[in-house]
Amino acid sequence: MIVLKIGGSVITAKERPMTAREEEIGRIAEEIASSRVRRLVLVHGGGSFGHPLAKQYGIGEGYRSEAQLLGVSRIHGAMATLNRMVVEALTALGVPAIGVSPSSFIVADGGRMGPVDLAIILGLVDKGMIPVLYGDIVLDRSMGFSIISGDQLASRLSVELKASRLLFGVDVDGVYTSNPKLAPEARLIERLPLSKLKGILMVGEALTTDVTGGMLGKVSEASRAAEAGIEVLIFNAMKPENIYRALRGEDVRGTLILR
Amino acid sequence: MIVLKIGGSVITAKERPMTAREEEIGRIAEEIASSRVRRLVLVHGGGSFGHPLAKQYGIGEGYRSEAQLLGVSRIHGAMATLNRMVVEALTALGVPAIGVSPSSFIVADGGRMGPVDLAIILGLVDKGMIPVLYGDIVLDRSMGFSIISGDQLASRLSVELKASRLLFGVDVDGVYTSNPKLAPEARLIERLPLSKLKGILMVGEALTTDVTGGMLGKVSEASRAAEAGIEVLIFNAMKPENIYRALRGEDVRGTLILR
Repeated sequence: MIVLKIGGSVITAKERPMTAREEEIGRIAEEIASSRVRRLVLVHGGGSFGHPLAKQYGIGEGYRSEAQLLGVSRIHGAMATLNRMVVEALTALGVPAIGVSPSSFIVADGGRMGPVDLAIILGLVDKGMIPVLYGDIVLDRSMGFSIISGDQLASRLSVELKASRLLFGVDVDGVYTSNPKLAPEARLIERLPLSKLKGILMVGEALTTDVTGGMLGKVSEASRAAEAGIEVLIFNAMKPENIYRALRGEDVRGTLILR
Repeated sequence: MIVLKIGGSVITAKERPMTAREEEIGRIAEEIASSRVRRLVLVHGGGSFGHPLAKQYGIGEGYRSEAQLLGVSRIHGAMATLNRMVVEALTALGVPAIGVSPSSFIVADGGRMGPVDLAIILGLVDKGMIPVLYGDIVLDRSMGFSIISGDQLASRLSVELKASRLLFGVDVDGVYTSNPKLAPEARLIERLPLSKLKGILMVGEALTTDVTGGMLGKVSEASRAAEAGIEVLIFNAMKPENIYRALRGEDVRGTLILR
């Protein structure tokens, strides 16, 4: 089983709210279809469908009042709409994909997913379908509502489904020594051992300043899967053929997180 | 708590595949919004979004081969798309509605819903949201996949959530002595006691020939809720103000199923 997470920044135009990159979605669907990988769970992020609304309704600072309820509606709705686009691109190519809605079966506690029953996800995969999940806003026992990122979801699914590999497709080549979008001297870290990673995450140095916050969160989630013995690769999903190659187990430039 | 089921024939054009009646959806959303009923769970049917695809892929006769997997994708996808329209009509009016995907948390056995955990539905209602569910294609322990009708779902939800009332909004005034669309002498049955109903359902007479198959199935599902002591009303949701009045507990012409 492979869990593939596609970043929101890959499938949406981050600077324009509620704007999907339909051509990218189509290309990604084609790469997944042509890879012919069957035991696959797909997770996608929200990008410009999720973040601007989450900010508008102050969901990031926690759920505090009923005035935010409409925000819950709108955030989930936007994510469900983006999910329909991703799933439809796959089914149009004959891939039996099916949207699975995180908020319909996951309850969080303090922003972390609580115990989940993955019998349906596993049942769908066993039948030959590709479940497609997404970052979502869910009920939270202590916070009312909270956002479960696609990264957290993908990492948790990979652990509980005992996946062999967890692939994070993002809009850069992997984890860099500094932010590659700002610093020309940035160098790709091709192999990142957990031992080194833990230090970085604990003291908050290097990666905190060197990569985007999104990358730090991603690496933190990724480390949980790596600890469980899952092969974790962060790679560039904007580059054509990379998703196809990663799914096929071929060499792809990126950052391998090592136990 | 009220469970309101809106028939697929009310919100879609039955004779035209994948065609929503957007004006009706908007009107229904307005009636729900103006009723100000809060503890409400909404369920809608599929109409021309669900039935033609189910027929095309032979899902009604059971799931038999992988060739039907794409049908599962397409049926769920069409229903999820219709659900987005219903939910969006509500949120556009400021109603904090949220789509809940039955196939993401329900497994069936022989075409009937298995045990379900309704903590999320109840949690959403407790927070002040209106969950919106729909007839869906779900994993089935014995059949592979099966379709759980909006009627079955609404009836089951009303029982498990201990709803006070279960309202079925359809495209006729209620249960008739014969099919009102064919027989001009048809007379509305305003009060239908369970005692009379059981005989009818068992011998398959009267209602089988007198009303549409859809109505027979609906009455059969409705009777399970009535047996549990829930007030069940079948009424015409095409007539403006009826949904508003039914939600407010005002008199509405229709068929009351009595224990």
